[in-house]
Amino acid sequence: MGIFYNFVLMKRKKRVVIIGSGGVATSMALALRDHVEIVQIFSRTLANAQRLAARVGCDNIVDNLGALDLNADAYLVMVTDDAIAEVLSLVPDNGALWVHTSGSTPLSVFEGRRRHAAVMWPLQSFSRERVEDMSHVYAFVEATSPADEQAVGQLAAMITDHVMTADSARRRQLHIAAVFACNFANHMFTLADDVLQRADIPFDAMLPLIRTMVSKLDTLTPEQSQTGPAARGDRGIIADHLASLSGNEREIYDLLSRSILNHHNTKPK
Amino acid sequence: MGIFYNFVLMKRKKRVVIIGSGGVATSMALALRDHVEIVQIFSRTLANAQRLAARVGCDNIVDNLGALDLNADAYLVMVTDDAIAEVLSLVPDNGALWVHTSGSTPLSVFEGRRRHAAVMWPLQSFSRERVEDMSHVYAFVEATSPADEQAVGQLAAMITDHVMTADSARRRQLHIAAVFACNFANHMFTLADDVLQRADIPFDAMLPLIRTMVSKLDTLTPEQSQTGPAARGDRGIIADHLASLSGNEREIYDLLSRSILNHHNTKPK
Repeated sequence: MGIFYNFVLMKRKKRVVIIGSGGVATSMALALRDHVEIVQIFSRTLANAQRLAARVGCDNIVDNLGALDLNADAYLVMVTDDAIAEVLSLVPDNGALWVHTSGSTPLSVFEGRRRHAAVMWPLQSFSRERVEDMSHVYAFVEATSPADEQAVGQLAAMITDHVMTADSARRRQLHIAAVFACNFANHMFTLADDVLQRADIPFDAMLPLIRTMVSKLDTLTPEQSQTGPAARGDRGIIADHLASLSGNEREIYDLLSRSILNHHNTKPK
Repeated sequence: MGIFYNFVLMKRKKRVVIIGSGGVATSMALALRDHVEIVQIFSRTLANAQRLAARVGCDNIVDNLGALDLNADAYLVMVTDDAIAEVLSLVPDNGALWVHTSGSTPLSVFEGRRRHAAVMWPLQSFSRERVEDMSHVYAFVEATSPADEQAVGQLAAMITDHVMTADSARRRQLHIAAVFACNFANHMFTLADDVLQRADIPFDAMLPLIRTMVSKLDTLTPEQSQTGPAARGDRGIIADHLASLSGNEREIYDLLSRSILNHHNTKPK
């Protein structure tokens, strides 16, 4: 696919319209700029479109969907979840490939509105301020036909080697995994901060430990790199810690210690 | 204290004996080497002492506690928790400052064995393979007298600006916080990995999200940077996720979502 794709690319770069100017649109446009021709950028706020256009070297910006260039090969709809259907209803189907980048909006949002459509969900939390190195990001794609899946896969392959297919069911599993790995892990930091505040110690004292924990994931699975009283089966320390906790913190410490004990005793090493 | 300390340093560097050659000893010796004179390194395994000695430019190594140089200013006992008391009982008190670096061994291990003693606990997980940049690490000190506390504080201040006092009770709070921030956060990664394995997706797909989560802690508190369904109060998504989980995962998802909901609704923003 690589050689074929390069051949196509040498003939003519794909013409892409960027719809949106937020975090996803910014990182995606910057990652794509050398691989496609960004022919137009739409944002409801012209100043935002202008700022992004300046960064990717595009001189065609619009804040009115009626003025959208309908002659491009692909349209990347990178707006809030609520606004995706609205954009699709305000712009007629021109037969090009239409792509949204939301993990929580199903492919069916395109149904009856677009003949060629796909989801390309880059698994990262984006912000307008920080441009992401997309090459480490996994992109999960789904499309309405094998041909469209190939087309969106080629687009995704321009920015990352990590392209996988994922339908809505698989995206839900990814969402749940991300809740555990990010939202809940971050809540563990909050609980640690609560404990530290009572001892007048800044949360920054945890940062070296946290950074080391995360850097271990480069070479070990999370289960392999698990340490601490529960992983060691040190029930004395666990009881000692539980005795000095109460309420919500105690309940969580207890449940998670038991979960780690189970993981590390019942699974083959 | 900085100026006074520099004056003392110009007169004569402190003479320090390193007892141990593992992860803590390696990073500590390397961080101290420009600030003190490392006069001797002890390890039960001579090859390990030799390897560390070569890295810090010391030519006096021993594998026998009976041959310990008793004319140094300070002794850093960086051996396993179990071995600290043994080292102290095998070497007579020479009136110098004796320091151990364990977070879980109380200061009282020195009682009746040393006149001048202290704990200096660097809050990091060390390994012999990776040398830590100690300047970001918090060092928690405790000593048997104000004079010894000042002495161990000066030693700690050579390697990091983050020196705080902590008695056993405070070190226990730090331990509990570290269990939440590291052991439990890492277990969240394991649970995410379990979910992903069922969907045939590599855990690496989570790494960009995890790295972004951690980098946000440079500027925000964990509570400020909390995202996800529970932080948004999105009970629909929570119910949807719970419906596709069971057993231990379901119980943890439920308890932690409720904990986040409570944190984000009852605390002042």
